[in-house]
Amino acid sequence: MNLKTIVALLVLTAAPAIAQDEANENTIDPSIIPADIAAKAVALRERALNDNLSVDIVESVTTEVGSRRMGTAGDQRVIAWAQAKFEELGFDRVWTEPVELDRGWIRGEATAEILEPYPHNIVMTALGYSVGTDGDLVAEVVEFPTYDDLLAMPEGDSLKGKIAFVSYSMADYVPPEDGSGLGAYGEGTRARGKGRVEAAKRGAEAIVIRSVGIDDNRNGHTGSGYNYEEGVRLIPTAALSAPDAILIQNMLNRGKPVVLKMNLTSEFTGPQMSANIIGEITGREDPDRFVFLGAHVDSWDEGTGALDDGAGIGSMMATAALIGQMEQRPRRSIRVILFSGEEIGFYGVYAYMKKHADNIDYHLLGAEVDTGGGRANTLTSGVGPNSLAVVREMHKLVAPLGIEFNDANDAQAQSDMSEASKAGMPALDLRQDLNGYFMYHHTPNDTFDKIIPEDMRYLTAAYATLFYLAAELDVEFRD
Amino acid sequence: MNLKTIVALLVLTAAPAIAQDEANENTIDPSIIPADIAAKAVALRERALNDNLSVDIVESVTTEVGSRRMGTAGDQRVIAWAQAKFEELGFDRVWTEPVELDRGWIRGEATAEILEPYPHNIVMTALGYSVGTDGDLVAEVVEFPTYDDLLAMPEGDSLKGKIAFVSYSMADYVPPEDGSGLGAYGEGTRARGKGRVEAAKRGAEAIVIRSVGIDDNRNGHTGSGYNYEEGVRLIPTAALSAPDAILIQNMLNRGKPVVLKMNLTSEFTGPQMSANIIGEITGREDPDRFVFLGAHVDSWDEGTGALDDGAGIGSMMATAALIGQMEQRPRRSIRVILFSGEEIGFYGVYAYMKKHADNIDYHLLGAEVDTGGGRANTLTSGVGPNSLAVVREMHKLVAPLGIEFNDANDAQAQSDMSEASKAGMPALDLRQDLNGYFMYHHTPNDTFDKIIPEDMRYLTAAYATLFYLAAELDVEFRD
Repeated sequence: MNLKTIVALLVLTAAPAIAQDEANENTIDPSIIPADIAAKAVALRERALNDNLSVDIVESVTTEVGSRRMGTAGDQRVIAWAQAKFEELGFDRVWTEPVELDRGWIRGEATAEILEPYPHNIVMTALGYSVGTDGDLVAEVVEFPTYDDLLAMPEGDSLKGKIAFVSYSMADYVPPEDGSGLGAYGEGTRARGKGRVEAAKRGAEAIVIRSVGIDDNRNGHTGSGYNYEEGVRLIPTAALSAPDAILIQNMLNRGKPVVLKMNLTSEFTGPQMSANIIGEITGREDPDRFVFLGAHVDSWDEGTGALDDGAGIGSMMATAALIGQMEQRPRRSIRVILFSGEEIGFYGVYAYMKKHADNIDYHLLGAEVDTGGGRANTLTSGVGPNSLAVVREMHKLVAPLGIEFNDANDAQAQSDMSEASKAGMPALDLRQDLNGYFMYHHTPNDTFDKIIPEDMRYLTAAYATLFYLAAELDVEFRD
Repeated sequence: MNLKTIVALLVLTAAPAIAQDEANENTIDPSIIPADIAAKAVALRERALNDNLSVDIVESVTTEVGSRRMGTAGDQRVIAWAQAKFEELGFDRVWTEPVELDRGWIRGEATAEILEPYPHNIVMTALGYSVGTDGDLVAEVVEFPTYDDLLAMPEGDSLKGKIAFVSYSMADYVPPEDGSGLGAYGEGTRARGKGRVEAAKRGAEAIVIRSVGIDDNRNGHTGSGYNYEEGVRLIPTAALSAPDAILIQNMLNRGKPVVLKMNLTSEFTGPQMSANIIGEITGREDPDRFVFLGAHVDSWDEGTGALDDGAGIGSMMATAALIGQMEQRPRRSIRVILFSGEEIGFYGVYAYMKKHADNIDYHLLGAEVDTGGGRANTLTSGVGPNSLAVVREMHKLVAPLGIEFNDANDAQAQSDMSEASKAGMPALDLRQDLNGYFMYHHTPNDTFDKIIPEDMRYLTAAYATLFYLAAELDVEFRD
């Protein structure tokens, strides 16, 4: 999940009061969802709750592919893996669509050491598309509690010869495990993205930030795509682990200089080809029109991308595969798309939208999972006013999974898919328990052991139920 | 805390039923603890609960000294720091006693990469006193679920050309945060210590283990001192992070070779001098005899040793300092000793015992803290039969801190101090809530932010209350 995704989620966060759900499946209006279809949806839901497929898919991609940042060898591996997995799962059609990356990036190594007040190795990770340091960079650290404090320094040479250090702590604003922290995350991503430009404008040699996350591990949280500006000097940028950021603050509190040595061997490379990978369960009556399930296939590169976004890959592939195992195909098609290059700037969805802009009407209803593998707790929709009654009935079939309904009807799909929402595609969105998402995502800790299998099964059961109904019912969600 | 410490704790763990404490300070027998002394103890306890000194000391040592493995520059820093801190805290006498280290060790760098089935960087940390790899070591991994499975292989060349991998998981036996896991820890330390010898006897090129701990972070857990055997080839040994161990297991489950590249630049150095540091609050009537509070001054070297054993340093120094702030000195002296070289083999306490063996009778009652900064939950004693009634009364004054009394009276002091217990020194021991101790200790994550200040204040209040009474009362705890 990257910054654009967060902005889309903030829209959801601002939604008004949640409608308390007290309905259950026995009260479903048969003129909206016929009883036989409702019964099939319930059977599917129960089957999904007992099927580990979504978890197995995450295990497969994290073990057989590993990290898969766009433009790397892992990116090529995952394109092959995804096609083979769609085939293995019985999808009717599988294809790829090319996505071009204008500029690749090699992470290289990131090492750092405090030299003064005494030598001590610390942990930092290069932010995405940082330039390297060209050998050891040694300079005194100047702390800014917030990014705005840095911006308040005059442009020119106010930070000449220094390493700027933005110590803003997302964790100070967000209880661990709390999903309310998207605003605190967004604040942290300001320095993560454009800090390299603003610090350079003030003469700094480099900029480091406290990792944007809520954990207390000696891991850096990476993030950001190419974020330099024409005409501004390119300076290295990295994220310190939270404990190391705290240590440097405590050292600075003594009033003596803190001198850092950092060495990043990151570098840019040339253009690369990647792809979106698409699998289809073909509808029996109306095959050209489809419900649209998304996740992003790329990941950051120090972990294996289990939560971000292996969980999306697993839940979305499993949702369609489980529907594909039913006795007959649903009325309309189901397409699962795995987008390339979300983390470094929505490359995959931009390519998709460019190619399919003329056919957006074929996209009946969409959703994406890009907030880990936690259970869904709230359903919101973004459909035409006449369809809201349908979504309300659909919700009754997932309410037993512990999902409330927010009837604001202002949802966009998450992450990449928000671009399709903006182009007019109706959407459903399930807000999830974050299960430590902001502790692990973008770090070396984003690994398969962080997946909680039962939660993934609950999540998948919810999407399978909703999108089976969406594909089966003869409803125009734009209406 | 090292393996010997664990063995001492296992003795405690095996103790019989816990006596439920329902007494309170109003029922204290004034013939055992006179009312004025009890009142002073209560006042001290309440003051300690509101005094952050123990936490401030941990902040000081972790910030101003950092890591401090015996034989390193940090070791020299902490000797100076500790003397200055004792002076600053108003101790009456401060001195050091030399401790010799026969063999130093440079950790160097530890990098590792899976080469097959595909290239992927993983996290490993050299176990203590491992030899280096002399460049890249590339070999296929052979997994042994337990150390006994490795031992079952025939000696000679059964592991020729391989990297042995003991995948035993302490976490499978211990719920996170559970203090009942000392046995599971002990099992893990078998391969951590002697695995290098047994794997070499079977022809292996190296041995790696899953880190002995209960966390799920991409950090290795180090440990062990010099553990090679005369006449057996020296091979490198390292600990994988838990997520990386799981990844390799999942790869091996596919039935294809997993090839690892590892590069450790560790090396041995020559003898070094270190020291135990001792501070005394001198008793007003019987100054030559003393109660004896211990912690170890050394730490592992990737974190800053906040839990292991900064918490011991902080709580023990603060205990004596808070008693020293009372209107008058207690009857007998209080000595705080910070032992050198616990982690790599009890160097400090062995030197101490050698020097002071003839004076063990002057050590009236001892205790050590080496299980982090969590609250105490159970008091046990190891005193003469006639003194047990005194300890029972003393306990009533710490019961309000949530501490039960285990009257088995078979305790030894923890860690280093267990050597003094064995030589006849009576002991008190407070079993603590482990607060994630086995998630963090021996890892880069053992940093100041893991200290929970309120818990440290509770711990310190308990020790201050008990050892003020022990120093003030005219009791022979050997009787």
